[in-house]
Amino acid sequence: MSYTAPVKDMLFNMAHLAQLDGLTHDVPAFADHGLDTAQAVLEECAKLTEQVIAPLNWEGDKNPSSWHEGGIVKTTPGFKEAFRQYVEGGWQGLVHPADFGGQGFPKVIAAACQEMVNSANLSFALCPLLTDGAIEALLTAGSDELKSRYIPKMIDGSWTGSMNLTEPQAGSDLSLVRTRAEPQGDGTYKVFGTKIFITYGEHDMAENIVHLVLARVPGAPAGVKGISLFVVPKVLVNADGSLGARNDVHCVSIEHKLGIKASPTAVLQFGDHGGAIGYLVGDENRGLEYMFIMMNAARYGVGVQGLALAERAYQQAVGYARDRVQSRPVDGSLPGAAPIIHHPDVRRMLMTMRALTEGCRAMATMAAGAYDRGHAQGDAAQQALYEFLVPLVKGYSTEISHEVTSLGVQVHGGMGFIEETGAAQHYRDAKILTIYEGTTAIQANDLVGRKTLRDGGQFARGLATLVEATEAELAQGSTAAHAVRANLSHARQAYEAVVDYLAATGKGNLNAVFAGSVPYLMLAGNLVAGWCLARGLLAAEKAIAAGEDLAFMQAKVTTARFYAEHILPRTAALRDAVLNGAESALALPLEAF
Amino acid sequence: MSYTAPVKDMLFNMAHLAQLDGLTHDVPAFADHGLDTAQAVLEECAKLTEQVIAPLNWEGDKNPSSWHEGGIVKTTPGFKEAFRQYVEGGWQGLVHPADFGGQGFPKVIAAACQEMVNSANLSFALCPLLTDGAIEALLTAGSDELKSRYIPKMIDGSWTGSMNLTEPQAGSDLSLVRTRAEPQGDGTYKVFGTKIFITYGEHDMAENIVHLVLARVPGAPAGVKGISLFVVPKVLVNADGSLGARNDVHCVSIEHKLGIKASPTAVLQFGDHGGAIGYLVGDENRGLEYMFIMMNAARYGVGVQGLALAERAYQQAVGYARDRVQSRPVDGSLPGAAPIIHHPDVRRMLMTMRALTEGCRAMATMAAGAYDRGHAQGDAAQQALYEFLVPLVKGYSTEISHEVTSLGVQVHGGMGFIEETGAAQHYRDAKILTIYEGTTAIQANDLVGRKTLRDGGQFARGLATLVEATEAELAQGSTAAHAVRANLSHARQAYEAVVDYLAATGKGNLNAVFAGSVPYLMLAGNLVAGWCLARGLLAAEKAIAAGEDLAFMQAKVTTARFYAEHILPRTAALRDAVLNGAESALALPLEAF
Repeated sequence: MSYTAPVKDMLFNMAHLAQLDGLTHDVPAFADHGLDTAQAVLEECAKLTEQVIAPLNWEGDKNPSSWHEGGIVKTTPGFKEAFRQYVEGGWQGLVHPADFGGQGFPKVIAAACQEMVNSANLSFALCPLLTDGAIEALLTAGSDELKSRYIPKMIDGSWTGSMNLTEPQAGSDLSLVRTRAEPQGDGTYKVFGTKIFITYGEHDMAENIVHLVLARVPGAPAGVKGISLFVVPKVLVNADGSLGARNDVHCVSIEHKLGIKASPTAVLQFGDHGGAIGYLVGDENRGLEYMFIMMNAARYGVGVQGLALAERAYQQAVGYARDRVQSRPVDGSLPGAAPIIHHPDVRRMLMTMRALTEGCRAMATMAAGAYDRGHAQGDAAQQALYEFLVPLVKGYSTEISHEVTSLGVQVHGGMGFIEETGAAQHYRDAKILTIYEGTTAIQANDLVGRKTLRDGGQFARGLATLVEATEAELAQGSTAAHAVRANLSHARQAYEAVVDYLAATGKGNLNAVFAGSVPYLMLAGNLVAGWCLARGLLAAEKAIAAGEDLAFMQAKVTTARFYAEHILPRTAALRDAVLNGAESALALPLEAF
Repeated sequence: MSYTAPVKDMLFNMAHLAQLDGLTHDVPAFADHGLDTAQAVLEECAKLTEQVIAPLNWEGDKNPSSWHEGGIVKTTPGFKEAFRQYVEGGWQGLVHPADFGGQGFPKVIAAACQEMVNSANLSFALCPLLTDGAIEALLTAGSDELKSRYIPKMIDGSWTGSMNLTEPQAGSDLSLVRTRAEPQGDGTYKVFGTKIFITYGEHDMAENIVHLVLARVPGAPAGVKGISLFVVPKVLVNADGSLGARNDVHCVSIEHKLGIKASPTAVLQFGDHGGAIGYLVGDENRGLEYMFIMMNAARYGVGVQGLALAERAYQQAVGYARDRVQSRPVDGSLPGAAPIIHHPDVRRMLMTMRALTEGCRAMATMAAGAYDRGHAQGDAAQQALYEFLVPLVKGYSTEISHEVTSLGVQVHGGMGFIEETGAAQHYRDAKILTIYEGTTAIQANDLVGRKTLRDGGQFARGLATLVEATEAELAQGSTAAHAVRANLSHARQAYEAVVDYLAATGKGNLNAVFAGSVPYLMLAGNLVAGWCLARGLLAAEKAIAAGEDLAFMQAKVTTARFYAEHILPRTAALRDAVLNGAESALALPLEAF
């Protein structure tokens, strides 16, 4: 159940899908963050994640975080010390500004580190992920005072962050938020309400927790336009930055979950003893807007979790398939029973796991590169690309994490069903990924609404043009490149047909559009991941021609081809479901279900 | 978390896919087992499963069976009493011969009851399933003495059965079985060895357990041709049928599993205290052949488990989607937040769950009808059809149970991830179904080897001809029928292309054939389930024309159309994976994984 960080594949993607060296050349702030730096950072992160954080993964499943009298939550033994090492290594501040103690790295490097932490231990990784989101929101909308008071402490790991959106009646639909915040006349508010599903809403790994909380002020408009964002610290912070009294926010229970058991999922009561003191972030009634900043960072991060978990499941399955001896190869190539990795269907399963994982990693790396260019250079086209890709990274990578972790169990046969083997944990952990930070349907709504219909499908069609350009390059290439080209071309055409259909249907029949939104997301994610692997194939073939790193580069070619031949063809069914399937999806009367 | 047996759909399938009334007309032994009888039996079974067995499902997950000092296994509170009611109702003997206390029902009726028990409580249902298999093996290969001594007690529920195949080194590959049986000169044997993964290998629901055990006699040939089958009762049986001394077989532990937690999965030690007394079933060295009899019944049964679990997950998701209020409908058809069943993507998910479940039920019912005709009438074509369908029923229905139970969690959103909701249990339970009684790859080996290549693809092509006949009928029908026809025709052509490819490739490149075996299985299962729904559509449209049961029949039409438009198109990708994908599936060198 050990883990080895795929540093080489990460660097390959940074070089060829995010053009990291170009970024460091173009952006002065990233001048010191080229491939050499990336390699050094990744190797350092690999050590920490492989040696310290990964060994705690199964331990956390066996000994989850636990709730105790007085609202205390104890995390899995070892987590606190590992978190100490994580923050002392400066990892929490990797992407954040140097002004607040961060290191100001580009996202493309930070995302690779994020993948490692998540592969090592998804439950552990959630704490830094949520803190990152809280920092991001304060950076964007917080006053200078809020920033200077909270961000340095979150970056140095003294305090962590949490996101408080969900209430029992308000999940995907935040317009139903009821938590209220009453102004006290001194610039502070008193917050009252119940928040559920709060990841690391209570724990013992840091001395304070900075809760970012959605609530309504008196007289706020109904719906999402009447929601404000507040900082509600677990422990109040004195003017000199020292810790003061305990605030009126308490963890009344934690959930008993299918997976990510080491990560406490808290029910938090705000204001049961007079009111929790809160500080407004930005302007009243603009909370949802700010929350979406956190959310977009977190959505990308959850997409990375999907591929991170897929990577871990893949590595574990490969290990088992090398060791487990069972049956003679069908072609008689060995005299007796062989390790099951010799059997064609096991190979097919492992290649499926590998291709999906590498495809999603390549897509996420391209997206991170677009983010960096968008933010650091103000490149609007790259920013738009990033925003288009976020629902794909989140939606597609997490959906495929179900498939990959399920195959991981399958490769183990009966042993996979035994918890001690550890394969089942990944399968259980993966299930939350398509749900939290917006379900796959919510991602698809974003993709189809804001990212596709708003400009009549123009940006979406532009992406297809980029894919076509890659097809033209592939047409000049090897046999493998030709095989990839044919499949990529069919998939791209399927995507275009769907974009055209959605753009044409969006005005008249919103039900039909939204019945096809998830198949559209899966199609687009499938295509873009396959496209990224195809671009990788072109780079790998150049490297092969130059005699560089042949084994690695040949594997990139084979994996890209496998993806093209086994995964890209799935786009045809998704196209058909969108183009022809809305009527039958919606026809059954409610009472007939 | 309640369960309502889908009696109407079951009867519809019996009438139109198994032609039950024709069967009762043609087979004197089934003269009393027509649709009216079926309805009465199903309604009785529905009562027991809905009221007694289903309420114990979640209880069994919370309070699994447990191992205690002395090798005692206690089942979940309530299981023993429920099992008593099950056997007293005569359900264990439903398909078995009247000579031994059974009721001699056709499989087509028994399979519907089996589905209900499995929907109600998969862990509970495993006990009768294994007993059925043991009875089947004894009926086929046991001496008259073994039959009369053991079968009546298993039918009346005093004793249960177990199947002992797997050993630590011998899972899918039974040639590696090491358990040995030494003849004692008095006709009995002493059995020594370790068996693992023995479902209900120890429990407290009956006074004895009839273990059927694979072992080798001295001098047996190596491999699968040297395996014999033995009865090894937990408690020895005296000449007068009363119970005697405890036999030397002991449960040393039970597994800690991902799912089906209430069903004990035992490690059994045979012969640690001098030897477990065993009785040879049939001839020495023919054990695997006999075991396959049990296994085929059990494989069909596991396929039924897949669709049964899918049905339960579907019902639970529908219930939640009706209750949970969240967000206004996208088309503005309601003024405020609505139950989520109004949202198009939730509808798409529920329809996917429904269509897959009904498709697999229809296929399983057709298979059971073929079995009944094959067995009772000696109809070789129907027997061959049944044998072709078994790997599809097992392989496809269990693979789709992953998809359906995963969607079941997804419909619940965050609540689905909380164990108390119950949706996650189905997701966990489902994962074993693609593994036990032969993994999906093992089913695919059977399909491609014995059922397809052995006759050069002739039978497989014949099945396509039957589908074509249905296409011709659909071409005469409604708009829905036309939509189904087009998709069915594409899927059938994809299937034919794959069968032709496999038949042509089978001689030269077995690796390529077996790299495509699972995609072939999924394609064939998808097609046959869709074909069965299409035949159901034709029957439903006739009923609609006659003004019969309009709401139900219209729902059958809509569901068949949904399947055709959303599920059948998946066959194109499976075809491509088989036809083009073998090289890339097998190309990566072992050291590159």
